Amino acid sequence: MTVEPVTKAQIAAAHGRIRQYVRSTPVLRPGVGSLVAGGADIVLKLELLQHTGSFKPRGGFSKLLASAVPEAGVIAASGGNFGRAVAYAARSLGHPAEIFVPATSPASKTDGIRHLGALVRVVPGYYAEAAAAMERRALETGALLMHPFDQPEVVAGQGTVAIELIEQIPDVNTVLVAIGGGGLISGIASWLGGTDVKVIGVEPEMAAGMTAALAAGEPVITEVGGIAADSLGAAKVGEIAFATVAQDVAQVVLVPDAAIREAQIWLWRHCSLVAEPGGAAATAALLCGAYVPGPDERVAVLVCGANCDPGDVMA
Amino acid sequence: MTVEPVTKAQIAAAHGRIRQYVRSTPVLRPGVGSLVAGGADIVLKLELLQHTGSFKPRGGFSKLLASAVPEAGVIAASGGNFGRAVAYAARSLGHPAEIFVPATSPASKTDGIRHLGALVRVVPGYYAEAAAAMERRALETGALLMHPFDQPEVVAGQGTVAIELIEQIPDVNTVLVAIGGGGLISGIASWLGGTDVKVIGVEPEMAAGMTAALAAGEPVITEVGGIAADSLGAAKVGEIAFATVAQDVAQVVLVPDAAIREAQIWLWRHCSLVAEPGGAAATAALLCGAYVPGPDERVAVLVCGANCDPGDVMA
Repeated sequence: MTVEPVTKAQIAAAHGRIRQYVRSTPVLRPGVGSLVAGGADIVLKLELLQHTGSFKPRGGFSKLLASAVPEAGVIAASGGNFGRAVAYAARSLGHPAEIFVPATSPASKTDGIRHLGALVRVVPGYYAEAAAAMERRALETGALLMHPFDQPEVVAGQGTVAIELIEQIPDVNTVLVAIGGGGLISGIASWLGGTDVKVIGVEPEMAAGMTAALAAGEPVITEVGGIAADSLGAAKVGEIAFATVAQDVAQVVLVPDAAIREAQIWLWRHCSLVAEPGGAAATAALLCGAYVPGPDERVAVLVCGANCDPGDVMA
Repeated sequence: MTVEPVTKAQIAAAHGRIRQYVRSTPVLRPGVGSLVAGGADIVLKLELLQHTGSFKPRGGFSKLLASAVPEAGVIAASGGNFGRAVAYAARSLGHPAEIFVPATSPASKTDGIRHLGALVRVVPGYYAEAAAAMERRALETGALLMHPFDQPEVVAGQGTVAIELIEQIPDVNTVLVAIGGGGLISGIASWLGGTDVKVIGVEPEMAAGMTAALAAGEPVITEVGGIAADSLGAAKVGEIAFATVAQDVAQVVLVPDAAIREAQIWLWRHCSLVAEPGGAAATAALLCGAYVPGPDERVAVLVCGANCDPGDVMA
């Protein structure tokens, strides 16, 4: 079966489903010349101010509201932002949630999921072990399985951020988006496909699954690590994401961990924003010159996650 | 000489002067029911995302751009947000700045002022000593003296936040604003005076200079302390602020330090925002019930400062 990108109609439908449950996140112009040299106009889309501190509830609500949720509720594997988002969406809609987290996840993230009322199952090992245990359990309970990036309703939900962005900045030329599993960028690229707006992907050098997939011609298992691995370290990008990026993304650039760290510090010092490493990666691409906008370019940067210990930002 | 509130014309003129230098800060709806029980619609005005992490550059730019700045530049006394704002505005406009800071100010704040290129003079003692030394020095150099809250151009500059807010939330009923020296609330109240919008002041119980002034019928020296003292601990509120609040502010409510602390934690957990204690005080008034909005009320809350160690928020 060939996997297809999601359609604009699917994204518009997701927007209709979720808009009363998610925040329309604001944009902020840091000021011409403050982030890059030259005259480019930079706008930050503050998706880190979304419920649960990342864009993930968009996809979570989209999937939940499009599904007949069984009495067993929903089930997912994630030690991070997606787990928190699923727990939040399930609680908001009155469904039980069971989240499998790898024992290697930090306690702060696991606690965050538990505080949202989800049943947390800690599985020895890494994400792959948690995902395998989750799939076995899903067969037993019949709960609705939520995938962090490779379900059409999830991708369509993430794409709703592009609908907001175009309303807020109608004349944007370029959008910079970090890539983990690829759910966010593929939703955005599908909404903007066929328009003049250029979508640029940003990957950490140490978690570059999409770059590897583009080289191989298909998603491949990649070794991941580095400071953004907890949010961008998918071992293999999604099939939907790959199909979309290959078709609708202009370029994927790489950023070193040092630039991500610098971007976190820049966002705090200049904008009073606390971004987690993955949430700061797209900003890093501008700071380190991995992407250099032209003097008249209007660039939107997705600042897409905040979930870290705020003290780490200036540590 | 009787001190008068600033006029709407002065605020509109300040807006014209400063708009290319300051950020139009965004608003965020945390979601109905998330901050207060009942149906009130709460909107946060994210003025903590302003340049230098507080609203103060509005007044700083307003005063600078309305003045013939001598070659000696500008001079001010402040160990905190105003010092940083004056240093930033002076640097942006190419003027030298000399800032007198009390030795009791935290090194992080002093360093922040120095990093913006200002000449920092550390004065033994508290704010009063730094202010006295600054006034003596101003007589020597002829530099333009900038007052943190008791100059009409400064108050008019702070009032520009209300122009933005009304554009963003045209049907707002109520605005909650923290009071230190009173520059921010008086600018806002002068812009909204004579309209249906109710302005509510919020003071920490331990730094309640406006409450004391209203009781005394004039600004009086008050003992101040508590966790928000570094930004809201003016020993005596401004003459302009007093005249304005007495006339155009519906009510001044008090919040305990524990509620301010709770508001800082709430803003991080639910909105991924790092607010300093003074910046969280208005939010605290809703959380602790010092101000209880009606079910159909649309309430804007000024979140007006971020300048703290981000690690302190969840410490």
